[in-house]
Amino acid sequence: MDKIKVIIWGFGAMGSGMAEMLLKKKGVEITGICDTHPDRKGKGMLSVLKANKTLLNTENIDHPGIIIKEKIEDIISPGCADVVLLATDSFTKKAYPKISYLLENKLNVISTAEEMAYPCASEPELSKQMNKIAKENGVSVLGTGINPGLIMDLLVVLMTGASIDVEHIKAERVNSLSPFGPAVMEEQGVGLTKEEFHKGVTYGSLAGHVGFNESVGMITDAIGWKLSSKVKQTQEPIISPVPRKTKYIEVEAGNVAGCSMNGYGYVDGKLKVEMVHPQQIEPETEGTDTGDYVTIKGTPIINLSIKPEVPGGIGTIAMCVNMIPQIINASPGLKTMLDLPVPRAIMGDMRDRIEL
Amino acid sequence: MDKIKVIIWGFGAMGSGMAEMLLKKKGVEITGICDTHPDRKGKGMLSVLKANKTLLNTENIDHPGIIIKEKIEDIISPGCADVVLLATDSFTKKAYPKISYLLENKLNVISTAEEMAYPCASEPELSKQMNKIAKENGVSVLGTGINPGLIMDLLVVLMTGASIDVEHIKAERVNSLSPFGPAVMEEQGVGLTKEEFHKGVTYGSLAGHVGFNESVGMITDAIGWKLSSKVKQTQEPIISPVPRKTKYIEVEAGNVAGCSMNGYGYVDGKLKVEMVHPQQIEPETEGTDTGDYVTIKGTPIINLSIKPEVPGGIGTIAMCVNMIPQIINASPGLKTMLDLPVPRAIMGDMRDRIEL
Repeated sequence: MDKIKVIIWGFGAMGSGMAEMLLKKKGVEITGICDTHPDRKGKGMLSVLKANKTLLNTENIDHPGIIIKEKIEDIISPGCADVVLLATDSFTKKAYPKISYLLENKLNVISTAEEMAYPCASEPELSKQMNKIAKENGVSVLGTGINPGLIMDLLVVLMTGASIDVEHIKAERVNSLSPFGPAVMEEQGVGLTKEEFHKGVTYGSLAGHVGFNESVGMITDAIGWKLSSKVKQTQEPIISPVPRKTKYIEVEAGNVAGCSMNGYGYVDGKLKVEMVHPQQIEPETEGTDTGDYVTIKGTPIINLSIKPEVPGGIGTIAMCVNMIPQIINASPGLKTMLDLPVPRAIMGDMRDRIEL
Repeated sequence: MDKIKVIIWGFGAMGSGMAEMLLKKKGVEITGICDTHPDRKGKGMLSVLKANKTLLNTENIDHPGIIIKEKIEDIISPGCADVVLLATDSFTKKAYPKISYLLENKLNVISTAEEMAYPCASEPELSKQMNKIAKENGVSVLGTGINPGLIMDLLVVLMTGASIDVEHIKAERVNSLSPFGPAVMEEQGVGLTKEEFHKGVTYGSLAGHVGFNESVGMITDAIGWKLSSKVKQTQEPIISPVPRKTKYIEVEAGNVAGCSMNGYGYVDGKLKVEMVHPQQIEPETEGTDTGDYVTIKGTPIINLSIKPEVPGGIGTIAMCVNMIPQIINASPGLKTMLDLPVPRAIMGDMRDRIEL
């Protein structure tokens, strides 16, 4: 069997991290990369990875050279790939034209877009369209990542598998933003004054975490609760009384070190699913322990914690690459993490996981 | 759509617990129960559940009366059920004649037998047979439970989904045996002297925990590690220097309060998967905190804990009932938890989960 062929669309932190991961795996090769960024288009994959200085020793890599193309049309041709890893957007609406183009070209797709982790929650019409196009073309499309995708939803769902009865679910993710660069600082409002932060929330320029709609929707649909109203969401600044500093940003005392978001899912008017997600730089400055926490009240009571939290970047890269066999094996259509066999690391030849 | 029909074979603690759980669920009904125990055969389901005095208020139950039959042949007829929950054995070899009979009668099967959680680990030939018979009859068979089935295997596999690379896995389950009755005390050797315990291990009369072969096999197959030797196993008594006591048993100072088992999986001669599973009555007597722990060394490092442990009885009952939709939806054949969508609680109508 030929190696599994993968195209990566979007070669920022996520896309390039997936390339580094794929280079270490057996039975798989990268056959194309698309990115429009002026620093990357036209360059060779390895030279960009070297410049990243992240995970990998790029010496002794035995992989054909790949030139990063600006236009996806210059990459796509019959048989060009088994799957495309799409790491360009957070919102389904923005990813949709790319996804439908890929599906029409009979390519399976895994998207990092947070909304794509459970697209029917925010975009039911586009979800129907994607499902239709995928089926017409005999391929499948999945959104995944660390969160949404695993920590605040799939892991919660899995643990309810040990439950006779569930009364209330709380998922909490307390994580550090210190490893992240300027784009994330801007989305989360780190470094702003309190007033600027609130203005940003009011005018919609601070996205904060995208995914509560998706995580709450995935959990409630999975266990058979029907939401009686839209998922409610709050977004508050985490003000640091002392200065904090990372490689990328300095925050003055009294300014915003992070963004605390909560999400609330109501069933029959009662609060049943709670999401708590404070993200900040240098949380240890004020003694905040990072971690992922799941509490399921019911029969039995389940108290799960992961300390420290599963890191967001590595986790998202791994989830997308590790789901490649599942999406190749899947029946045609739009899939979610609820539909497919559990994600798992790939330590052997990736081809051993493909059902013939 | 008619209610989903379930037969329960084996009406001890697990089977009767499943009945109690099913009575509280929508869209499902129990259509037959088989048990050979003199205290139960010929009796009505509700009278046995009432005598159990466990989970349920049996008043106001709206369910047709079911008489517990001694012979399975008196229950099985065309269309009698969509699935049989088989809660009679620990070992595949002992469950096999029952499973093959059910499959030949075109019934899906979920088995609590520990070895059935990953039957190819200990019984590769019988596994091939079951797969063949299931396919010939257009039905499917699954083994599951809390452990093996979730805590020391499926949960571990799921968490590796966030891993770029895995170097070593440790799964630890520290649990209390206090809720369990005489049968479990005997299997685990609780109440014996140290000498009696060691004699029991030598002569094979103390089963201890059944499942390391299965859990290690499931994990290594899932992530693509090939075991270079059989899973090694140790079994030691937990000696209590002070007396301990439960509803069912009294242990004198200096005698066996539990059984500590370890399992070791080697890949290329190196220890890669470690199982640590001490089980004892009244662990808090000597300050032992119960819990489930997963440690994955690799990229990233993942430290997961569940405190206290997910209780074994409730968890096994829930896993078996909650997997009913997945095994009805599955393609024909022998399935494991690796093949099917993740388990989840069933809080709505069970029929909503069936793919038509």
